[in-house]
Amino acid sequence: MEPRPPEATLRALESLDDREAHSLYGSDFLLSWDKSEEQLRAVLTVAGLLKEIRDGGISPRIFDSGLALAIFRDKSTRTRFSFLSAGNLLGLAVQDLDETKTQVAHGETVRETANMISFLTEVIGIRDDMYLGAGHTYMKELSAAVREGHREGVLPQVPVVVNLQCDIDHPTQSLADLLHLTRFAGGLEALAGKTIAMSWAYSPSYGKPLSVPQGVIGLMSRFGMHVRLAHPEGYGLIPEVEELAARQAAASGGSFLKTSSMAEAFEGADFVYPKSWAPYGIMQRRTGLLQAGDRRGLEDLEAEALAANSRHADWECTESLMKRTREALYLHCLPADISGVSCDRGEVQASVFERFRLDTYREAGYKPYIIAAMIFLAKVPRPAETLRRILSRAAPLRS
Amino acid sequence: MEPRPPEATLRALESLDDREAHSLYGSDFLLSWDKSEEQLRAVLTVAGLLKEIRDGGISPRIFDSGLALAIFRDKSTRTRFSFLSAGNLLGLAVQDLDETKTQVAHGETVRETANMISFLTEVIGIRDDMYLGAGHTYMKELSAAVREGHREGVLPQVPVVVNLQCDIDHPTQSLADLLHLTRFAGGLEALAGKTIAMSWAYSPSYGKPLSVPQGVIGLMSRFGMHVRLAHPEGYGLIPEVEELAARQAAASGGSFLKTSSMAEAFEGADFVYPKSWAPYGIMQRRTGLLQAGDRRGLEDLEAEALAANSRHADWECTESLMKRTREALYLHCLPADISGVSCDRGEVQASVFERFRLDTYREAGYKPYIIAAMIFLAKVPRPAETLRRILSRAAPLRS
Amino acid sequence: MEPRPPEATLRALESLDDREAHSLYGSDFLLSWDKSEEQLRAVLTVAGLLKEIRDGGISPRIFDSGLALAIFRDKSTRTRFSFLSAGNLLGLAVQDLDETKTQVAHGETVRETANMISFLTEVIGIRDDMYLGAGHTYMKELSAAVREGHREGVLPQVPVVVNLQCDIDHPTQSLADLLHLTRFAGGLEALAGKTIAMSWAYSPSYGKPLSVPQGVIGLMSRFGMHVRLAHPEGYGLIPEVEELAARQAAASGGSFLKTSSMAEAFEGADFVYPKSWAPYGIMQRRTGLLQAGDRRGLEDLEAEALAANSRHADWECTESLMKRTREALYLHCLPADISGVSCDRGEVQASVFERFRLDTYREAGYKPYIIAAMIFLAKVPRPAETLRRILSRAAPLRS
Repeated sequence: MEPRPPEATLRALESLDDREAHSLYGSDFLLSWDKSEEQLRAVLTVAGLLKEIRDGGISPRIFDSGLALAIFRDKSTRTRFSFLSAGNLLGLAVQDLDETKTQVAHGETVRETANMISFLTEVIGIRDDMYLGAGHTYMKELSAAVREGHREGVLPQVPVVVNLQCDIDHPTQSLADLLHLTRFAGGLEALAGKTIAMSWAYSPSYGKPLSVPQGVIGLMSRFGMHVRLAHPEGYGLIPEVEELAARQAAASGGSFLKTSSMAEAFEGADFVYPKSWAPYGIMQRRTGLLQAGDRRGLEDLEAEALAANSRHADWECTESLMKRTREALYLHCLPADISGVSCDRGEVQASVFERFRLDTYREAGYKPYIIAAMIFLAKVPRPAETLRRILSRAAPLRS
Repeated sequence: MEPRPPEATLRALESLDDREAHSLYGSDFLLSWDKSEEQLRAVLTVAGLLKEIRDGGISPRIFDSGLALAIFRDKSTRTRFSFLSAGNLLGLAVQDLDETKTQVAHGETVRETANMISFLTEVIGIRDDMYLGAGHTYMKELSAAVREGHREGVLPQVPVVVNLQCDIDHPTQSLADLLHLTRFAGGLEALAGKTIAMSWAYSPSYGKPLSVPQGVIGLMSRFGMHVRLAHPEGYGLIPEVEELAARQAAASGGSFLKTSSMAEAFEGADFVYPKSWAPYGIMQRRTGLLQAGDRRGLEDLEAEALAANSRHADWECTESLMKRTREALYLHCLPADISGVSCDRGEVQASVFERFRLDTYREAGYKPYIIAAMIFLAKVPRPAETLRRILSRAAPLRS
Repeated sequence: MEPRPPEATLRALESLDDREAHSLYGSDFLLSWDKSEEQLRAVLTVAGLLKEIRDGGISPRIFDSGLALAIFRDKSTRTRFSFLSAGNLLGLAVQDLDETKTQVAHGETVRETANMISFLTEVIGIRDDMYLGAGHTYMKELSAAVREGHREGVLPQVPVVVNLQCDIDHPTQSLADLLHLTRFAGGLEALAGKTIAMSWAYSPSYGKPLSVPQGVIGLMSRFGMHVRLAHPEGYGLIPEVEELAARQAAASGGSFLKTSSMAEAFEGADFVYPKSWAPYGIMQRRTGLLQAGDRRGLEDLEAEALAANSRHADWECTESLMKRTREALYLHCLPADISGVSCDRGEVQASVFERFRLDTYREAGYKPYIIAAMIFLAKVPRPAETLRRILSRAAPLRS
């Protein structure tokens, strides 16, 4: 009954330098580009290890009690269950802060509420991607409030904030995508020199957040890859994020190319990520209208945006486009708009999606472990040592 | 502090042949008649053992983490808390999939969603009894989706599906009823030759599902009992289930009798189960109207159905009817329509119900353990061995 | 790795006489004045110990499974999370009974439902403060139902009821307030002779429950303090509670003074608790109108009550009033109506509140531990012995 971890696990564990990994102790995870390459590598390594340990039937639980608080400002199945699974895996009870049931909207300040709900809270996962300029700001405000509480003896522990999608970045998604790529390519180092095409694609709906493409170009440009961003005229991302991606790509020995041709982006690519989003300009106007509560204005904007989208219905990931790639792996954060399946015409041709369907499921399957790794590294002072102790645990009772 | 299990527990444990019990490993529990008598006996035995273990102050927890997913398409107190209790007992965190909060309704396929929410899911409990032809089909579709996910390496474990009530069967209810009967009669064998009357009863409401009476006649006909089904003309069940009950009764050495007289059904009966349901024909028309979203049609149908019901207001379980039985035990899945208590006139006379009220509570009290036993047997490869290890656990800290 | 509890912890533990503490075993906590001073002292001691143990990184978990059921008839953030945290700390899964999702409102009796949801329930926390005469009565009814269930073999354990705020008392709040006071004063004994001013304060909203001031005067009058109750004419509390406070104050060597001047109440006070509430008479009429579903009547009453409030807008806790005190500690159950912050004019001047803001957070931080202590003492037969065993536990894995 003595479990012997596989060699790959032990090697990964050796690669996890406790000193580097420790640098994430106590810290929030808001933007991937606030973290060093070594810190990102630690997240990927711990996520992979937690998955192997769990898949091998050993429990990586590190908490006996404690809360993981979920604040979702938007409907969500996948991200909600990813956070729930991550918290559960580590021993935390996940609790939604349902703002319709609470008094948050009734004049309480964020500062006060944040402390009132955090006496046993170890981590706060937030999804707030509706308004440009709001989500990231809210996360920082909440983090500051609970850190004041900890400093002043109100809270015995620091509840760290994990960004589950904001207006700027979606780091749990992009890191899950990256872990998927490393498994496919055979390691993070093997990604250098590879080409990834992040492309806009047509969707019959509107208002999809910018944080997925921004998260992808903001992360994939760190590891020597050639990152291509393709979209029709007028569908640009937040300019600062595009500039960041260009700078990072240059620094890492890769490149960053912008193009208005999906075909050009796909040419010879190793990975393709065709996905719809709303243009930055539209999102800015939408944010203003939402804040003003201008219903008529929102309806007019939606009609205008859908009309604009419809002029680019040919931005579809088709078999013939896939033929231009280097037998590329298709990526998607799900759910995809699949032509003839979930809509008449959408982001991807049905046969392409079906060929990669299970791959996209596996891609999504890394997300709970990425989130768990972020929590683990923020909460465990000596990660490698604790992982070694977990690996020496007995197999579960029911085996 | 060394716990010594009582003799009855040890005898029950010995009766649990690991080889037979193991045959439920990895399997869904959708219809009781898909299972062999030996498998049903294993569920009853494990349910009884889990209850004794827990009542004795020992924790039968077998999971350190993991999710039990609840999908309820209908309001429910009792079944919801039964599933919650079963999951909690075994160490699973129970999570509702609230379809109003998720994107399930927004074009995602069941197949995709099923996998996205199952990375840590050990069991999925589903209640879907609103539409004829829908609930059972949905459960099979969901099961197929997660089994594909497991086969293809998306999910590390098989999330098994437990039917918490569908359009055809309600096995967690009927098995809880059966466990109650065995406790009353002194064992499963003692039920052979006994008579049970499953009778329609008057209710001032309409549209109660068919799955309770179907589940009862589909299960009780397996063990040599004389099963009587009584209802007014036109209140029949799904014909295939009635035929199944007749075949099973004949094969098990019992009998199956249909009658349109409540008095005849009660005559000399050992157990009576008077309970309202909507006629099969009405349910078929209702399903069509619901699917068509025909509000006016539904109103007309309700009026018609209530008028039909009112012609049978004399189908009430009264003291004088109870006198015709062999001092029968009264059964009900709760809540009952009690004349003069929860409605003017209903399924049962108040004095009859009050005499059996605590018995019906005890009957309901088996349901969490039936569900836990279904999960246990689907998840534990060597049930008897694991139960022995549980029995050797120390008493809880707080004692 | 052998944890050595601090001296203060050991002294507190020694003060916890198991015989006295045991007297709370199996009992509900509905009204603080139903408990003896020794029992209240045990709650404070255990709450303090649980907080120290947890803050020291040791888990005070005593349950391996089991449910803590939350029934909230009103919106709530703080109390909800306090109960959630208390349950989680001890190892219970907290489950809301959402009455909109269940069949409670559909004619089921409280008696039946109470048992159906309690097969694994260890504690039921209830907040029901909307109707005068209803909340406390409902808690007693529910308690009687599950106690019958336990007596009759339906439930293996007694689910104890904890009052999370009713129409009469709010004992988890007032005991958290009291624990805060003892920490500030240096022990329960040090409170004798101190003066506390419970004062009405102006709020632009109406209908705030009476249970906070009632809970405060009903508890603080037990320990030799001078309790002053200040409010404008016509804003009295339930007369029986005022009489109780006077009797208790006299018996404990303290005093109870009623005044219609905030300044008089504050004069030389050690602690001040300025907080708005609705007059008893208004609450009686409101209850009648709510029960009658008289919407128009409720609107008229609200207008009348707000007009009455506005005549007392000078009842504000200002800097100049604070100067009359003996450098008093400001108390509040939160959220406060802060002038110029959460409303134009409210209960407290902004600079006063800001000076005590973190103190009010700490005050609130005792509530989860007060609730946990109530559960602990109701569920653990030998509290001191169990606490000693908890203290000998190893530090958590992640350290």
